[in-house]
Amino acid sequence: MNNTGENKFTPLSEIGEFGLIKHLTENIELKHSSSVKGVGDDAAVLYYPESQILVTTDLLTEGIHFNLMYTPLKHLGYKAAVVNFSDIYAMNAVPRQIVVSLALSKKFSLEWVEELYSGILLACEKYNVDLVGGDTNSSLTGMTISITAIGEAKKEDIVYRNGAKENDLICVTGNLGAAYMGLQLLERELRIYESSGGAQPSFNGYDYVLERQLKPEARKDIIQILKEIEVKPTAMMDISDGLSSEILTLCNQSDKGCLIFQNKIPVDTDTIKVADEFNIEPSTCALNGGEDYELLFTVNIHDYDKIASCSKISIIGHILEDVGIRRLVLNDESELELKAMGWNAMKMD
Amino acid sequence: MNNTGENKFTPLSEIGEFGLIKHLTENIELKHSSSVKGVGDDAAVLYYPESQILVTTDLLTEGIHFNLMYTPLKHLGYKAAVVNFSDIYAMNAVPRQIVVSLALSKKFSLEWVEELYSGILLACEKYNVDLVGGDTNSSLTGMTISITAIGEAKKEDIVYRNGAKENDLICVTGNLGAAYMGLQLLERELRIYESSGGAQPSFNGYDYVLERQLKPEARKDIIQILKEIEVKPTAMMDISDGLSSEILTLCNQSDKGCLIFQNKIPVDTDTIKVADEFNIEPSTCALNGGEDYELLFTVNIHDYDKIASCSKISIIGHILEDVGIRRLVLNDESELELKAMGWNAMKMD
Repeated sequence: MNNTGENKFTPLSEIGEFGLIKHLTENIELKHSSSVKGVGDDAAVLYYPESQILVTTDLLTEGIHFNLMYTPLKHLGYKAAVVNFSDIYAMNAVPRQIVVSLALSKKFSLEWVEELYSGILLACEKYNVDLVGGDTNSSLTGMTISITAIGEAKKEDIVYRNGAKENDLICVTGNLGAAYMGLQLLERELRIYESSGGAQPSFNGYDYVLERQLKPEARKDIIQILKEIEVKPTAMMDISDGLSSEILTLCNQSDKGCLIFQNKIPVDTDTIKVADEFNIEPSTCALNGGEDYELLFTVNIHDYDKIASCSKISIIGHILEDVGIRRLVLNDESELELKAMGWNAMKMD
Repeated sequence: MNNTGENKFTPLSEIGEFGLIKHLTENIELKHSSSVKGVGDDAAVLYYPESQILVTTDLLTEGIHFNLMYTPLKHLGYKAAVVNFSDIYAMNAVPRQIVVSLALSKKFSLEWVEELYSGILLACEKYNVDLVGGDTNSSLTGMTISITAIGEAKKEDIVYRNGAKENDLICVTGNLGAAYMGLQLLERELRIYESSGGAQPSFNGYDYVLERQLKPEARKDIIQILKEIEVKPTAMMDISDGLSSEILTLCNQSDKGCLIFQNKIPVDTDTIKVADEFNIEPSTCALNGGEDYELLFTVNIHDYDKIASCSKISIIGHILEDVGIRRLVLNDESELELKAMGWNAMKMD
């Protein structure tokens, strides 16, 4: 758990807005020729003479999207950047630049903001992205992080959500449900910590699901693999809510139905172990849990061999022409209507 | 004053995140061929085959940047968009697209968010900008608005902050200090309202300064005029903090000094009237007040005649080679060091 009580740090008021931005950004080197001008003017300047440009934005608020009691700031910065990269990859494109806005209340010191920024910059380094601008402000309470990512792709490479055709194979990358179980675990330990007056949590043996929750990765590798095996998906999106919700969105946008098979949904053995401990059916984590940032896509059935030979991709079902049928086939061959029970950031009630 | 106590509105929980985004964006028509794909996929897709692209972002938080007790939501949406357009114009470029992220606490109903969005869309309409994406989330307390704007310009037209040369004329558009006096007035009336148990504020005769605070405009017209009179500024930025702070930034980035003249700083008669009422020296509002969203720029002295004939532009001083001299010449010909007392959104102390 983070210790929020210390007071040996530099208050942000000492350094001021301009000082903070300068401090955080002065060592940033731009990697891409498309990044003409980065931080330091009214706007960043980019140049993409032959590509289409992709823009996506995500806003994360304290208490809704993250809890600083169990989220290290560096991980938070990393995740805030990665979820945006994931949206760009989900268009079969490549992220190139981000702009970062922060709102911070008085409780945050310079050192905390540095930690957050170091996570953002680590993600930029790993995914080869330039940080080119931003805005740093105060807030009355808590922290808000807003990141906008810009990516590029050739027009003919971009994959939208609406292109799924009858008989297309439905594919997902990696495995699902781990991030959700990681969150359950963190929240359980926080409850114990709070009710016990400070008992230290025991996370031994839970590394995998915790890492999937706290430090997710975007599937840059899959975009490269798809290029190498010369498969262009017919539709694609990332899995930030649960698989059910995302499949329904893809079917809605493509005006199609689908069948998916419970026994084909990839769930890691570590996830199954934690799900058992919590008495949750593992495929429920995958279908309704969120934040895995895997990719969901459809491919033409002629690409079956190429996809089936890739260990990072699972074929979990297929597209139907009938928009009225969107079903999960259970292990006992009975069928369930897919419902968007998705983990929903809009927890307004 | 807004009445925040009513409860006849639609709770956002009834409509959900997807429903809200659909509701707010389903009637948006894209105006630009550069807006290839708008709201509804993982990312928006843009295409600028021959232009450089400009990106700027601003994040506004309740209680710091706006107070919903006196800010109508429609005005707030309008302003949140316009401040981003202003940053794009300040590069001598034209805004084309925005993405909008909102974080909203439980107190906001669907109707309130519609009001906010109607202001954003009105600004888009007036400034000919497409809304192409966004994110809508909940927050534990208050409202946060994050907008990222994308603009375009030919490489040779873009004006940075660092190009001011010795003897260049320092120019500002419109007049300054009005938005600051509008804010003082609103805060005074709010204090009276709160201490009197609800006395209605009297804003008669204060329309101009209130409008400058609540519904600022970006100087699209100036960018057009500069093109028409064939003047390309050597350096430019918008005036979102006070004039002092902005001039110092421009001088810092250009590695130059400056002299500006108190009696040349344009302040509207309505602003002077309110400043007198508050016992504030009018040029102090201009120098240290913020949020006017006018443009500050420098031009070569050979452009003097073209600039002097434009009623919307005031020449307030000139650039010096000596970086050590950055002074305000007062009406009595004494000189003061320029200080960045700027209205600073980073109110951390």
